[in-house]
Amino acid sequence: MRDRAPWRYPARIVPTAFLGIIALGTGLMMLPAATAGPHGAPFVVAVFTATSTVCVTGLTVVDTPTYWSTFGEVLITVLSQVGGFGIMTLATLLSLLVSRRLRLRNRLIAQAESAGLAGGNIGGILIRIALVMFVSEAIIGTILMLRFWLHYDYSPGRAAYQAVFHAVQSFNNAGFTLYPDSFVRFVDDWWICLPVALGVLGGSIGFPVLFELAREARRPAGWSTHTRLTVWGTVLLTSAGSLLFLVFEWSNPDTLGPLGANTKVLAAFFQDVMTRSGGFNTIDLGMMHSQTIAVANIMMFIGGGTASTAGGIKVTTFLLLAFVIWAEIRGEPDVVVRHRRIAEETQRQAVTVALLGVALVAAGTLALILLDERVPFDRALFEVTSAFATVGLSTGITSDLPPSAQLVLVALMYIGRVGTIAVGTAIALNTRRRQYRYPEERPLVG
Amino acid sequence: MRDRAPWRYPARIVPTAFLGIIALGTGLMMLPAATAGPHGAPFVVAVFTATSTVCVTGLTVVDTPTYWSTFGEVLITVLSQVGGFGIMTLATLLSLLVSRRLRLRNRLIAQAESAGLAGGNIGGILIRIALVMFVSEAIIGTILMLRFWLHYDYSPGRAAYQAVFHAVQSFNNAGFTLYPDSFVRFVDDWWICLPVALGVLGGSIGFPVLFELAREARRPAGWSTHTRLTVWGTVLLTSAGSLLFLVFEWSNPDTLGPLGANTKVLAAFFQDVMTRSGGFNTIDLGMMHSQTIAVANIMMFIGGGTASTAGGIKVTTFLLLAFVIWAEIRGEPDVVVRHRRIAEETQRQAVTVALLGVALVAAGTLALILLDERVPFDRALFEVTSAFATVGLSTGITSDLPPSAQLVLVALMYIGRVGTIAVGTAIALNTRRRQYRYPEERPLVG
Ligand SMILES: [K+]
Ligand SMILES: [K+]
Repeated sequence: MRDRAPWRYPARIVPTAFLGIIALGTGLMMLPAATAGPHGAPFVVAVFTATSTVCVTGLTVVDTPTYWSTFGEVLITVLSQVGGFGIMTLATLLSLLVSRRLRLRNRLIAQAESAGLAGGNIGGILIRIALVMFVSEAIIGTILMLRFWLHYDYSPGRAAYQAVFHAVQSFNNAGFTLYPDSFVRFVDDWWICLPVALGVLGGSIGFPVLFELAREARRPAGWSTHTRLTVWGTVLLTSAGSLLFLVFEWSNPDTLGPLGANTKVLAAFFQDVMTRSGGFNTIDLGMMHSQTIAVANIMMFIGGGTASTAGGIKVTTFLLLAFVIWAEIRGEPDVVVRHRRIAEETQRQAVTVALLGVALVAAGTLALILLDERVPFDRALFEVTSAFATVGLSTGITSDLPPSAQLVLVALMYIGRVGTIAVGTAIALNTRRRQYRYPEERPLVG
Repeated sequence: MRDRAPWRYPARIVPTAFLGIIALGTGLMMLPAATAGPHGAPFVVAVFTATSTVCVTGLTVVDTPTYWSTFGEVLITVLSQVGGFGIMTLATLLSLLVSRRLRLRNRLIAQAESAGLAGGNIGGILIRIALVMFVSEAIIGTILMLRFWLHYDYSPGRAAYQAVFHAVQSFNNAGFTLYPDSFVRFVDDWWICLPVALGVLGGSIGFPVLFELAREARRPAGWSTHTRLTVWGTVLLTSAGSLLFLVFEWSNPDTLGPLGANTKVLAAFFQDVMTRSGGFNTIDLGMMHSQTIAVANIMMFIGGGTASTAGGIKVTTFLLLAFVIWAEIRGEPDVVVRHRRIAEETQRQAVTVALLGVALVAAGTLALILLDERVPFDRALFEVTSAFATVGLSTGITSDLPPSAQLVLVALMYIGRVGTIAVGTAIALNTRRRQYRYPEERPLVG
């Protein structure tokens, strides 16, 4: 009999923990107290919303402010916070564990070591993560509170409530809002859009990078390859995405068209950041040109940083694949990122994460159009990518889908959230030793 | 000054040769004699049709039987034959060259050697390929001729002409037809559909495999990994694709619905084979369910065998990636296909071909919807995949696209046809020696 204790298989911690919290959240959301009406939420609504909060996605099947009671909204806040904190701590700790195992196996360079975590004990890391989250959310919340109170004339209590709710959603990249049209009403409000967007960006970087930046922000030459890839990748993707949104939607009368030039820039930047996992929107996604939707699909699929609240295949995975292709085209035997050779195992891991992601999105899209023949292909693809990458943007079809299709999205949110981490960790921890080798062969490809 | 002689850079032979033949074909098609009307074809029509024939794609911007004269149709036949023969011989010879270079570098196992080509000289190989093509086309043509003559009451001359035209199109996977609705009128005719489908299948296997099968058909245990992957991959994809088409379209009143059960099976099999590069259709693609279109996209992208008249990323590339992921998930240090280890270089080559294909299809789709805003995303994706994989199936939008978008498809057909071969060969031939290695690092992915 095999020993199945969880500490023997740390890769199982994340899926199990998330399953438990989702089950608890579903139960609580089915209580009559959680909804505005007299009855509790039906099972599919509860499990969808609980998964969407815990996996910090933000897709909804009901209108958040009218369907849920205050208790329900507090539940959404707490579950988003638990989900965001959980994913960041567990992913960070697992990366540390992976690095220690690798060191035991006498490898020279370990991931987390180079990413600046080697010195910390587990308790210290948890406290540091909690502190960064709390401070970030407090800053965002304070700015939002003042703005809601002073500019929009909310009562101080309501301003504080709304500010806390959206600050938590922002840093955790969770994407729920208390407005039926997300953030469209704030499209030209720099005091709302900037803190929210910067909060989303901060949460989507990932703690291994944040910790290293805190120590070495002024010495980029000393950054680890992981930090280097994440930072430059984020800068590159954010600039390119914002620019494409700006150019493609500049004169679209239903999106950026009516806005002033400055506001267009703000809205394009805001939408690009949200697309790579935030999940809010200030322009109507259903009215975007299809070329913009296509770019948004790609950005959602790539997502944010590793061990962050963002989803997707991750910025490092995407950039590493680009470096692999570049090395291959130039005929270089090694994949080199600025004087550092990328380990073969890491290359294969990146390929696996990306191709499994493609397969999952393809299968999910197929399932959605099979289960609801009214759904056009491009809308199904968008919604499935949004669920897989835990983005939460929607062209509006989710609430009208049949329950079976909604459960497909539930599965995609869950797999998209815990799958990449579990697969990545399992691969890194379970690598078998080579006992013997078969003779080599080279089939023709291409 | 660097030496740029073509024999120093054999990877450049294929792109250059195809460019030359396309230019010649374009010029000939602009002659008034090539069209049914009094004037020659405009440049965009000529370059599109010439590229589509030479790259054995089959996409059209005009109705073949009414637009072109008999001379124009003969041109299409000759150019398809030259293109199909060219791609098979050049790809086969380059794979042989690659294997010889590798042997010079003291590698033990060489691709073409294991694929059964090592003994042949260049002249012998060309003659064998020409012979297989001629005999196959003669058999298909004879069956079609008899059927056209005896069953459809064509005059003997017309039956022979139609038979030769479609036999050449079939084995070369070229996809042009002399009927405005492709092969829809023959949907229930086994004497037409079976020879054409088997011809397409034969042409899409690739010569390295055909030669090995000719020698070792009865001894599968001795097959090279390349042959093994191609044969089982083709069987697997053809069965799975036919079954999905059959299930998805079984009761669709606009496609398989009105047909008898046997005819449904024939039509589903025919359509799956055509999707992986043949380019004919017996059911109206524009009326298919979107789930069937989604499966067709995937099948088109995968395509046929290496060094064949089929396009796409190739069956071996697709299966190798599946084996890479499988090994990765199981934590195996080597990728093993039935007691043979797949070389690291081959794995990286497969990843490069597949990811460049994805990038090209994404960029092409984006370009198409940017250049013509009336085109829906899913139709643009289908047409672009069809062009990249030189399949030639169409939902009917190509002829209505603006010239700029048609030129994008021309570029995709050309790159899709010569790109994978050129990239694959360039990679294999130009691999640089490792002078020194940088220290290894392991960024976090997923
Ligand atoms: K989200
Ligand atoms: K074709």
